Amino acid sequence: VSTAGIIIIGNEVLSGKVEEENARFLTKELRTLGVKLMRVTIIRDEIEEIASEVKHHAAAFTHVFTTGGVGGTHDDVTFVGVARAFDLPIIRNSDLERLLIEHYKDRINRHVLSMADLPEGSDLIGLGVLPYPLVRVRNVFVLPGVPSFVRAKFDVLRAMLKTTPFVLRQIFVRVGEDAIARVMTDVQNEFPDIEIGSYPRFDTDEYRVKITIEGRDGGRVQAAVARLVERLEQSWVVRMA
Amino acid sequence: VSTAGIIIIGNEVLSGKVEEENARFLTKELRTLGVKLMRVTIIRDEIEEIASEVKHHAAAFTHVFTTGGVGGTHDDVTFVGVARAFDLPIIRNSDLERLLIEHYKDRINRHVLSMADLPEGSDLIGLGVLPYPLVRVRNVFVLPGVPSFVRAKFDVLRAMLKTTPFVLRQIFVRVGEDAIARVMTDVQNEFPDIEIGSYPRFDTDEYRVKITIEGRDGGRVQAAVARLVERLEQSWVVRMA
Repeated sequence: VSTAGIIIIGNEVLSGKVEEENARFLTKELRTLGVKLMRVTIIRDEIEEIASEVKHHAAAFTHVFTTGGVGGTHDDVTFVGVARAFDLPIIRNSDLERLLIEHYKDRINRHVLSMADLPEGSDLIGLGVLPYPLVRVRNVFVLPGVPSFVRAKFDVLRAMLKTTPFVLRQIFVRVGEDAIARVMTDVQNEFPDIEIGSYPRFDTDEYRVKITIEGRDGGRVQAAVARLVERLEQSWVVRMA
Repeated sequence: VSTAGIIIIGNEVLSGKVEEENARFLTKELRTLGVKLMRVTIIRDEIEEIASEVKHHAAAFTHVFTTGGVGGTHDDVTFVGVARAFDLPIIRNSDLERLLIEHYKDRINRHVLSMADLPEGSDLIGLGVLPYPLVRVRNVFVLPGVPSFVRAKFDVLRAMLKTTPFVLRQIFVRVGEDAIARVMTDVQNEFPDIEIGSYPRFDTDEYRVKITIEGRDGGRVQAAVARLVERLEQSWVVRMA
């Protein structure tokens, strides 16, 4: 099973000045690809914090995605943080340097060129395909902060990440969690490989709780659904999906 | 300066089955109250993960907010995780037990009653004011996962959290970050107590970069704005706010 962590880097998100869109986009994409998302962290543009969070995620998960902090201004410290997480020196990447010089021409300066300073051993993904390549450092994909750029760069990642998708079934019941808690616990214990969740709603009359049953093995998901339906009172079930 | 961390607990958020609303709501509220948000984490319903994240946040920040995992079903393990973070035993709270019995009447069962099992020394906030009180364990406010409940409970917290609000000024410029990077670095170094950020946009012709200048001391913010304007070329500035 391939797992992932997302690290959103940016004071502007924490201070509420910018609405967070990238975590939401990546969460949906990873779900579609069948990658199990384990953790999302939103942190400040601080080198030590980035380093410690990246180190933790990179050791624990198959893939790590960071967004933000990769421009050429004073608060763009993501690459320095990622380098520190892996104890790598920062060196100038000549492919990126060339791209930047081509793009900025006579407006080039040392702040812009600092965008080509990467942790040693970084891979450039999509070089020649994307207007600006995606940088990978070990298992960490370093994405920009601008949402439209994240989406464009993710297009080249889909094929690399594809795995077995999840199967999700849902049972909507007209009773509260109090009535179904024991059945859910029992069935969860019987199907430890299936994830069973319950989500109460109070803003609709149609149902009170949505039960979700999810896993990678469609047969096992179906078996867990059947066991739940068998154990719930028939009149409680509003509908299934 | 009062600081905060937010911990969103729930597999349903990470798997993309439920759209995250609570972090967004809390981020805006904390900003309005002048509380500096340092970190947001979205984690799974796992006791050890909750314990380690709560421990870290509680030691580092003035206030911690958790959401989710407080119902009476098998995946509701937040209180156990918070108890473990502080090495506290779990004991049944008699006020909550009474409330639950009054509410559920003959539908009461041990799963529902488990909602009254709290870390020793928990405070109940809003008892008798809210339909169901808010639980605080040391500096951790334990909020539910249902967004409308979070909003209702936050109403009683506002007065407890109020501090000096932030002052935010903005300068919109028609040039890219490459042109303003050096000025921003210089002014940031001169005003280390002020937070200066830059946010490029590519989907409007009005401006290319928004510069934000933020702090608690209005006079210092104003001085930093004046220094930036003095250093930027006049023709670059589109407008200020």
